[in-house]
Amino acid sequence: MRQSKLFTKTRKEAPKDEVAKNAELLIRAGYIHKEMAGVYSYLPLGLRVLNKICNIIREEMNVVGGQELVLTALQDKNIWEKTGRWSDVVVDNWFKTKLKNDTELGLGFTHEEELTNLMRDHIHSFRDLPVYVYQIQTKFRNEARAKSGIMRGREFLMKDLYSFSKDAKALDEFYQLMKDSYMKIFSRVGIGEKTYRTLAPGGSFSKISDEFQTVTGSGEDCIHICEKCRFAINDDYIKLQPTCPQCGNKELKKETSVEVGNIFPLGTKYSEAFGLQYVDESGLKQPIFMGSYGIGIGRLMGTIVEVLADAKGIVWPESVAPFKVHLISLAQGGGDAKNAADALYKKLTDKGVEVLYDERELRAGEKFADSDLLGLPFRVVISDKTVKAGKVEFKRRTEEKSELISEEELFKKVG
Amino acid sequence: MRQSKLFTKTRKEAPKDEVAKNAELLIRAGYIHKEMAGVYSYLPLGLRVLNKICNIIREEMNVVGGQELVLTALQDKNIWEKTGRWSDVVVDNWFKTKLKNDTELGLGFTHEEELTNLMRDHIHSFRDLPVYVYQIQTKFRNEARAKSGIMRGREFLMKDLYSFSKDAKALDEFYQLMKDSYMKIFSRVGIGEKTYRTLAPGGSFSKISDEFQTVTGSGEDCIHICEKCRFAINDDYIKLQPTCPQCGNKELKKETSVEVGNIFPLGTKYSEAFGLQYVDESGLKQPIFMGSYGIGIGRLMGTIVEVLADAKGIVWPESVAPFKVHLISLAQGGGDAKNAADALYKKLTDKGVEVLYDERELRAGEKFADSDLLGLPFRVVISDKTVKAGKVEFKRRTEEKSELISEEELFKKVG
Repeated sequence: MRQSKLFTKTRKEAPKDEVAKNAELLIRAGYIHKEMAGVYSYLPLGLRVLNKICNIIREEMNVVGGQELVLTALQDKNIWEKTGRWSDVVVDNWFKTKLKNDTELGLGFTHEEELTNLMRDHIHSFRDLPVYVYQIQTKFRNEARAKSGIMRGREFLMKDLYSFSKDAKALDEFYQLMKDSYMKIFSRVGIGEKTYRTLAPGGSFSKISDEFQTVTGSGEDCIHICEKCRFAINDDYIKLQPTCPQCGNKELKKETSVEVGNIFPLGTKYSEAFGLQYVDESGLKQPIFMGSYGIGIGRLMGTIVEVLADAKGIVWPESVAPFKVHLISLAQGGGDAKNAADALYKKLTDKGVEVLYDERELRAGEKFADSDLLGLPFRVVISDKTVKAGKVEFKRRTEEKSELISEEELFKKVG
Repeated sequence: MRQSKLFTKTRKEAPKDEVAKNAELLIRAGYIHKEMAGVYSYLPLGLRVLNKICNIIREEMNVVGGQELVLTALQDKNIWEKTGRWSDVVVDNWFKTKLKNDTELGLGFTHEEELTNLMRDHIHSFRDLPVYVYQIQTKFRNEARAKSGIMRGREFLMKDLYSFSKDAKALDEFYQLMKDSYMKIFSRVGIGEKTYRTLAPGGSFSKISDEFQTVTGSGEDCIHICEKCRFAINDDYIKLQPTCPQCGNKELKKETSVEVGNIFPLGTKYSEAFGLQYVDESGLKQPIFMGSYGIGIGRLMGTIVEVLADAKGIVWPESVAPFKVHLISLAQGGGDAKNAADALYKKLTDKGVEVLYDERELRAGEKFADSDLLGLPFRVVISDKTVKAGKVEFKRRTEEKSELISEEELFKKVG
């Protein structure tokens, strides 16, 4: 894409009312717009990142056999009363609204109730199990405070998968599979090394659940890491389990972190509330065992920014960058450098490489500052100097020094 | 996809509380689930259709230079007060809610206000114009009645594009371009022949706006068609314009219809309310001329069902069908027919053809009834009889008679 056509502008100053690093950088770079605390619009560059993260997650959910659907934001009070979760005392972050006839509705903060109720139309027999369904859908949570940028939204995109299994053993097998799937996702989006599977309290069905916590300087959580096992225990669970459950290590390291995912064995709590049963091989009715598996997409995007950004701006991993290459022309007016940059832009896009082409008439310093702020993985500069040398100037966002390389070498690096 | 793995089931009876043909069929076929009147979840097959429609629209919006973003559902009262549209008297279909601190919020039913306000950060100079942005995003409308299935939702996906131009002439040029773009979209999704560009009243800026109305037996609207020009006038405008504005034809035909899209020249109403101006070539501040261009995605999907369905079920055009081929095995247990069906499923999917493979152990009659209800464009049957003949049985959903053809002929038809 030609940068002169991109409607968003970068800005030097962070917005005054924004204290979170992720949102400061993303707003300055034109990825997002703050509508109010915890409510952000995604502008074209931000939407590209969001979609890449979604597609990685979608691929991994399809690998484990997930079927994608989309449930609704508007929620029926009657359904939530079956589990007691309609109450604002039990659930403290409901947004509620009303139909014209004064019927109360909620805005979904999660979807166990709606989905369990829906599944009664589709699961009847052991032949229908297991079922794994997921959605990438907008959640609403009425957070009292929302100061963490896109890491804690009042409105945010979430992937939530729900599993329906015939017994506790089948649930556990799938649950173990999801642990690996989640670590693969965090690795693919570029924060695998900083992310720990973390033991956390469970609910009525299971003593434990699993969180996935990413170590950052600025998270809302705190975890205790066993560096031998790459395993952690969350702050709520450390009293019950003060040593590493895998190796017995007592030297756990305390770190500030962000919860980027959590998985939870639900057992029969929801299926019993809704009478969701199946008929087994011998003709007997049996309860269905459920699990839930969440990843906040905006939170994950914000965490990537927090973990990888440097003093100059955002640093995107290749897998989620809005464009792979930032091609910068330093041509003044027309001439050879402009022709060379135009030609390279065409060659790269013809090869299927995603390129943001900065052909704007601005000073080199401004363009480089924008490029660092935007954070695309590879910067390629074309100027009179590079044209004379028959080369292009190449630099990774994570490196300080650029190098002059040939077009062929460039295609190898970014192709 | 193997149909035995698809968790959704078809059902024979329409749900009791559903009166709209589109929702009756889509619920019976397992494409959607009704949460409450006007609020529907999209199950895997339904989501596939929705995504195909979205991608066609997205392609056409990109062709006209649209940049995709996503605005928020939660709306700031202060912004809407600038245009007077916060009032429940002015806008009668708001859903409203509250933050913990009692700050009132709305759920967006459209996005002129939020977007115009946002654009103040990005449009400053004539060099920044024109800008065309669009989103495919969930709208909330508190409809007093919602009896038209997915054709009138209280929560529904909409594509809305907004144009920002330097003057009335530039707005008009883009507006004309969008008319063609819209007709192309309706043609690509399979309802081009039934859809008419329809003259409708405008607002303060322009006397007219344009609707796109699809003739159905069951719509909420009424239009007056000039069959010579393939042009129509809506019921509100017919008093002002009782003859075809293109050819003067007085013999207009009255038809029931559904509004599948509308485009609207907004002029400077919103840009003036928000002080969205640009500096022109001579350094003077000028107002920005806007237009808005909407298509309800769910409504479009519902209209396709209404227009094309027959007594046996849904009939999808190839372009939006969840799968292209419904491959039905009539093999009993294992044997040659099962092997042949498995092999054909593999060959078709290897060729990139989207296949729903019905390998369930059910009677032929049930499978054919499900197939008609689901409405995929091509039905291919494998049985002992077809295997003996060295052929496959092929039938289009729109035809009554099947034929025995070779695999090579099949690949030509569906490849």
